[in-house]
Amino acid sequence: MHRYAPKFFLLLVLGGLAGEGCRTISRGSGDANVEVRAALEQQVREWNAGNLAGFMEVYSKSDHTRFASGGNVFLGWHTVFDRYRSKYADRAAMGELTFSDLEVTEIAPDAALAFGRWRLKREKDEPSGLFTLLFRKTPDGWRVVHDHTSSAETK
Amino acid sequence: MHRYAPKFFLLLVLGGLAGEGCRTISRGSGDANVEVRAALEQQVREWNAGNLAGFMEVYSKSDHTRFASGGNVFLGWHTVFDRYRSKYADRAAMGELTFSDLEVTEIAPDAALAFGRWRLKREKDEPSGLFTLLFRKTPDGWRVVHDHTSSAETK
Repeated sequence: MHRYAPKFFLLLVLGGLAGEGCRTISRGSGDANVEVRAALEQQVREWNAGNLAGFMEVYSKSDHTRFASGGNVFLGWHTVFDRYRSKYADRAAMGELTFSDLEVTEIAPDAALAFGRWRLKREKDEPSGLFTLLFRKTPDGWRVVHDHTSSAETK
Repeated sequence: MHRYAPKFFLLLVLGGLAGEGCRTISRGSGDANVEVRAALEQQVREWNAGNLAGFMEVYSKSDHTRFASGGNVFLGWHTVFDRYRSKYADRAAMGELTFSDLEVTEIAPDAALAFGRWRLKREKDEPSGLFTLLFRKTPDGWRVVHDHTSSAETK
């Protein structure tokens, strides 16, 4: 194990920088992990600024981009955006978003899986659940091409 | 587009062979797609034979194998098996499983994402939903290392 120690410490440092204030578990190494975490932090910032268009920037602007939740599939960036706009029509519905327990696994030089927990703190409730995101590296940066989200309140 | 035609027809043929009787959408090509679909067909056969141990063969026998559903995370092959044994204790609870709308995306030579719809036909109800599976190619074959499942009845 000793020969891996420097890499392990580098991971700890990178993980610490990328996941400020979050409980994080890092897997893999290098820029992909850092950049995917940065993209997710950007999503949280945009959401909490009430900027759904900014939040959507992290999804790949493709007709193949997919959002799955419960038993529903939304296919295509515009369809996913419409679903968010309909479900989170105002700041009260959006609430304050946090991601936690984030784990990013590099699968290939251009692919990473992000798994974690989401929570919305709203005036009347506090829904939460889990997400699995497939990120691909595109000319624009790391972008979500597949999002499977589930809710804790439900089975 | 014409120069892609032979590949396209090969995909159609492979997709047809791999997804007999199912509505399928194929992406990628080659053995990975066929083998992942074969693994999922094996899972369905084992489930419908009442063999949970056989069903579990398709999950990687690793402490990192993960099953996520609703707001719950089950980590490790044994933990995932225990969850299935507890939730589907007898044939009545297991019902008859079908997968549909299956899409397999090759991500790397040793990684593929499978997305589809599951349905259990049981005497008293017919739960259904979606699954996202990350398969990795292991010395034992293609195995699920991450499973995110959601239920249609729920949000």
